[in-house]
Amino acid sequence: MSRLDNDTFLRALLRQPTPYTPVWLMRQAGRYLPEYRETRKRAGSFLALCKSPALACEVTLQPLTRFALDAAILFSDILTVPDAMGLGLYFAEGEGPKFERPLREEWEIRNLAAPDPTVELRYVMDAVAEIRRALDGSVPLIGFSGSPWTLACYMVEGGSSDDYRKVKALAYTRPDLMHHILDVTTQAVVAYLNAQIEAGAQAVMVFDSWGGTLSEAAYREFSLAYLARIAAGLTRERDGRRVPSIVFTKGGGLWLEAIADAGFDAVGLDWTMDIGRARALVGERVALQGNLDPAVLCASPEAVVAEARRVLDAFGPHPGHVFNLGHGISQFTPPENVAALVEAVHAYDRDA
Amino acid sequence: MSRLDNDTFLRALLRQPTPYTPVWLMRQAGRYLPEYRETRKRAGSFLALCKSPALACEVTLQPLTRFALDAAILFSDILTVPDAMGLGLYFAEGEGPKFERPLREEWEIRNLAAPDPTVELRYVMDAVAEIRRALDGSVPLIGFSGSPWTLACYMVEGGSSDDYRKVKALAYTRPDLMHHILDVTTQAVVAYLNAQIEAGAQAVMVFDSWGGTLSEAAYREFSLAYLARIAAGLTRERDGRRVPSIVFTKGGGLWLEAIADAGFDAVGLDWTMDIGRARALVGERVALQGNLDPAVLCASPEAVVAEARRVLDAFGPHPGHVFNLGHGISQFTPPENVAALVEAVHAYDRDA
Repeated sequence: MSRLDNDTFLRALLRQPTPYTPVWLMRQAGRYLPEYRETRKRAGSFLALCKSPALACEVTLQPLTRFALDAAILFSDILTVPDAMGLGLYFAEGEGPKFERPLREEWEIRNLAAPDPTVELRYVMDAVAEIRRALDGSVPLIGFSGSPWTLACYMVEGGSSDDYRKVKALAYTRPDLMHHILDVTTQAVVAYLNAQIEAGAQAVMVFDSWGGTLSEAAYREFSLAYLARIAAGLTRERDGRRVPSIVFTKGGGLWLEAIADAGFDAVGLDWTMDIGRARALVGERVALQGNLDPAVLCASPEAVVAEARRVLDAFGPHPGHVFNLGHGISQFTPPENVAALVEAVHAYDRDA
Repeated sequence: MSRLDNDTFLRALLRQPTPYTPVWLMRQAGRYLPEYRETRKRAGSFLALCKSPALACEVTLQPLTRFALDAAILFSDILTVPDAMGLGLYFAEGEGPKFERPLREEWEIRNLAAPDPTVELRYVMDAVAEIRRALDGSVPLIGFSGSPWTLACYMVEGGSSDDYRKVKALAYTRPDLMHHILDVTTQAVVAYLNAQIEAGAQAVMVFDSWGGTLSEAAYREFSLAYLARIAAGLTRERDGRRVPSIVFTKGGGLWLEAIADAGFDAVGLDWTMDIGRARALVGERVALQGNLDPAVLCASPEAVVAEARRVLDAFGPHPGHVFNLGHGISQFTPPENVAALVEAVHAYDRDA
């Protein structure tokens, strides 16, 4: 078992006691940091940054230099898998991710195949290995992927959407084709996450960013069923240590109990559900990660501290809470508010 | 009491038996109808359409000519109230609503005053009266307003937002100012809705479009408390007939029981919560309106009918259900799918 100086994050995910509440922030390496913007500029494009193991390693470590965060997360994009499937990921300035070849025709869907992550996604595995070396046992490294439903949203819509009508129309009109996309994508995600674990990721997280846009019945059929297959397929131990897994369906609070039964060690919560109520619902089944509204970080440091304490109070005594935001950090966040947040979470005495 | 040929909508809102399930669709007068696009073009702009009682009446009636809908809804915008407060509503092409003078400074907030709806919003009252005359007792007319929180989002952000960080930062940093905005806006909304009732609206609905972007604690403090004040201030009877009220917090499923206790007759549901589960939670407190995913209307007519039946089955036997979408109808909806939907809802035998 390799050295790990700070295992509070891994222990909290497994609902084991920790001396304080571990904290990390979704998108903690990102545009709110001037040093990130500088590296991003040097890389030339967001995608070039993702695809360079050295630069991805550099930005992954930037927030850890500033703040006493308890985990690092691989710098990458959730859409690497469909990109490796040949859909042609690109970023139009100010418009978010797009695919050059979205799935439009039945034959395109039938031709989908899961990539070999050690070949087509070699650059991700190289970044994972390089970040692990650079972290040198200080804090654990989180690997991640988008969920099959979330990937399918982009693959069918061709980019972001505010109504998901193309992918939903496909799901309702041709569920057979939708399930084929989800089946192949699930195989690809399992292989991708296990390859990240093999390369050195010490925990993994599945981002189901758009699961919350579905009805309950459609969520169970088109997202949750595939999340459960991923949980069942994940490597559970590596290097003598358990590799915890986290699932996060943004907007999934209404289905929390079903999500807690999907087979992951921990469930991410957005900020709409009171975390104390969430804990009462999931009981001892899973740990919880969350759930401060990221907009709070755009308020005053005093408000940040007060709202962070509200989340900690709502969760209650140890164990089983990883503090995080309920969504990615805003690019407009003043870095000093992040410092105030991390300090307040670490200073909080859960059992007082 | 004036004549009303079809009172199924009003009766269902009051949880009284009806021979079939009434149905109307949020944004039923809109861009998916070619005749709407034609009138809109003739008006010159969306705002000119809203502000012309004759044209607003014309488009309000268009969907009723095509489909056997059980209610008409005033054609207007949710932002008429802050416009009448002097913020200067305008629509930038393809960008949604904006305000020329969003609330930026403390003195601007302190200067806010509730408009007299019979003066500054006279054009709305004229439209209500003209539509009532044109409907001639066929189906009831719904009046509406945005909720105080939703109006405040636009008033502070100056337009749509994908993170609401300005209005939330204000709420977290200066709750006193936020409550002042919400207090004045609540007075304005109550007066506005009561003026619509006086002018002829036979039911009223409050659209809390952005309440679901808040944490639970913030929702209760900044949205629900003001919704309850609106419910308490509404005219309850007019022309010898009860005037039912509906509240709709998009994304509010997690807080359904609290919303059901706010004092409205009915609660609108988006499509993320199973309506059978919602009914079990609210019991006999309120009627429910909803909750088909509007994206279903972009699928095949067969899928529309199957998913509509799923909602009707989930709700179960009479009474207390008004069928609707879980959000406004998409501009990309084929009108023939709406025809299939309305027919399927009316043909469904709840008590079979």
